[in-house]
Amino acid sequence: MLMARLITIALGGNALLQYGQKGTFEEQLANARRTSRQLVELLRRGYRLVITHGNGPQVGAILLQQEAATDQVPPMPLHACGAMSQGLIGYMIQQSMINELKRAEMDVPVATVVTQVLVDREDPAFQNPTKFIGPWYPEEEAKRKEEQGWVMKYDVGKGWRRVVPSPDPIGQVEIEAIRRMVEAGIVVIASGGGGIPVIDDGEYEGVDAVIDKDLAGERLATSLDSDLYMILTDVEKVAINFKKPNQRFLDVLTLEEAREYYEEGHFPPGNMGPKVKAAMRFVERTGREAIITSLDKIIEALEGKTGTRIVPK
Amino acid sequence: MLMARLITIALGGNALLQYGQKGTFEEQLANARRTSRQLVELLRRGYRLVITHGNGPQVGAILLQQEAATDQVPPMPLHACGAMSQGLIGYMIQQSMINELKRAEMDVPVATVVTQVLVDREDPAFQNPTKFIGPWYPEEEAKRKEEQGWVMKYDVGKGWRRVVPSPDPIGQVEIEAIRRMVEAGIVVIASGGGGIPVIDDGEYEGVDAVIDKDLAGERLATSLDSDLYMILTDVEKVAINFKKPNQRFLDVLTLEEAREYYEEGHFPPGNMGPKVKAAMRFVERTGREAIITSLDKIIEALEGKTGTRIVPK
Repeated sequence: MLMARLITIALGGNALLQYGQKGTFEEQLANARRTSRQLVELLRRGYRLVITHGNGPQVGAILLQQEAATDQVPPMPLHACGAMSQGLIGYMIQQSMINELKRAEMDVPVATVVTQVLVDREDPAFQNPTKFIGPWYPEEEAKRKEEQGWVMKYDVGKGWRRVVPSPDPIGQVEIEAIRRMVEAGIVVIASGGGGIPVIDDGEYEGVDAVIDKDLAGERLATSLDSDLYMILTDVEKVAINFKKPNQRFLDVLTLEEAREYYEEGHFPPGNMGPKVKAAMRFVERTGREAIITSLDKIIEALEGKTGTRIVPK
Repeated sequence: MLMARLITIALGGNALLQYGQKGTFEEQLANARRTSRQLVELLRRGYRLVITHGNGPQVGAILLQQEAATDQVPPMPLHACGAMSQGLIGYMIQQSMINELKRAEMDVPVATVVTQVLVDREDPAFQNPTKFIGPWYPEEEAKRKEEQGWVMKYDVGKGWRRVVPSPDPIGQVEIEAIRRMVEAGIVVIASGGGGIPVIDDGEYEGVDAVIDKDLAGERLATSLDSDLYMILTDVEKVAINFKKPNQRFLDVLTLEEAREYYEEGHFPPGNMGPKVKAAMRFVERTGREAIITSLDKIIEALEGKTGTRIVPK
C-alpha cells in the first residue's frame, strides 16, 4: 500500500502564546485553534501528521505554581512538571484539532501521547547547566535553593534563577507505540516540550533537565521515517547576518552550506541555532528535506513559495 | 486471528497514594511501581490491558497550586487541571509499567492518551453541583469566589469549598484512537480521573465538572468490547450491611441481586456506590462479567479465589 507522505511538525511557542499575552487558557486555546486550522489543511491535502511542540511558558507557570504552594502540597520535580505541561498543551491542541476536523467534516483520530525522551547521564550538559528555568529569587533564597541541590545563576538585572542542563536527546522511549499509532492512521501529538527527560540507569528515571524541542523533534521525525521535517517559528525564512545591513534570507540551504553558516555563528544558540541544527541532523540522517518557516506559512512553504528548505545537496 | 482477552482496569486512588502519605513524587512513583508489577503479571499471562485511574489528590494539589500563584500566572480552569493530572499520573504509571516490563524482559508498548469525556450539558448534575473540590476558604473569600461564578458550599467544620457537578459520562472523545491503539497491541492508559469533561456544543468545549472514574471506565470498557471490567479499590470484596453486625461479603452478585442491594442503599454514593453502578452497567450492556476487588488481589480475583464478581445471571 502506498502510504501518504508523513510530515513531522515542530510547533514553536507562538503556536500557543503570542507576544504580550498573559497566558490564560482562553488565549492559548484560541491560538491552538488558529494553528489547528493550518494543520487540518495539511491533512485535507492528504498528508499524515505527527506534531510536537514547545512548553516554555507553560512549564514556567507550572513551576511557579509548585513553588507558590510548597507549604500546602509537595512540589513536583521539573520532569514531572514537564509531564503536566504535555497533558495541558496536548489537551488544547488535540481538542482544537478535533474541532477543526469536525468542521472540515473529516474523520481522523487525534491523540496526545505522554512521551519520555532518553538522555545520556554522561552528557557533558550535566556538568554545565545553562538553561534558565522558573522564577527569579532574591540572593538569600537562592542560597537556600543551592543548599537543596539546585544550581543557581545570576540573571543580569533580574535576580537569581535556577539553571538546568540541556542534554542532547537520544530518542523517544515511547517510539514504538507512536510508530504503531501513525501506522494506524492516528494524528499523534508527542514529545511535547522536548519530552520528559529520563536517563537509563538499568531503569528509566526522570531527571531535571530541559531538552530542546526541535532536536527532540528530529529524533521523532527520523525514527518515524518521516518524509519531511517542518520546524515552525515566528520568522518566514532563516537569515544569515541576521539584523545586520547585509542580512540575507535563504530559500534553499544545502547541508554543506548550512554547516558552514552554522560554524560561522550565523544562528544564535538560544534561537535559530538549534532549529538549523535539528534540520541539518534530519537531512543528514535521512537524505530528505527539512523546512524552517513561520506558523502561518505552512502551506506556502510546502508549495515551495516561501520558507527555508534544507536539502542534502 | 484469536485475540487475547482484553481487560479494562480502573485503578483506585490507593494505586498511587496510600493513607497518611503526603503525596510526594517519590511516594506516588513507588506506589505506581507496586501497582505495575501486578499489571505486568496480567500481561505475562497473555491478557491485553487498558488502564484507567483516579486523580483526586493530584488534581486537588494542582488546583491548590493554581490558587496559590494567581498573582503571578493565570490559573488554569478545572478541566485543564484535569488534563495536567492525566499527564502527571500517566507519566508515573507509564514509566513504572515500562520499567517492570523491561525487568520481565517483555516487549509491549505502553502509552498514555490525553482523554476527553463527553457529558450532556442538559445533565441534571449541572443544576445541582455536589462534588467538593480544591481548598477550603474563609467565608469572605468564599463570597468573592461566588461572585466570580463558583458555587460554594459549607463543608462542616472545615470551611467553605467549591462544589462542581458530577455529570454522567457519555463516552470518550478519543475512543477511536484508543481502539486502534489496543488493536495495535499497545497497553493504553486513558480516561484518567474520569476524563477531561467536555460538552458538545457543535464543538467540544471543556467544562468545570468531575466525572466519576469508574463510570467513565465502564464507557471505555464497553466501547472497547472488553472481555472483563475490573474495578480495583481498597477492599477485597463488596459487602452488604457494611460495618454492621450482619455485614456479609459477596463472592458473586447477579445483575438482579446487585440492583436490589443498590436500591436498598447498601452501597454508599461516595464510595462503593459508583463502583457497583459501573460494574452493573458493564454487565448489563455487554452480557459479560465485572470484578470488584482490591489492588493487591488482581491475580487471585481473576483465578476466582477472591473479589466480588458481578455476573449477568
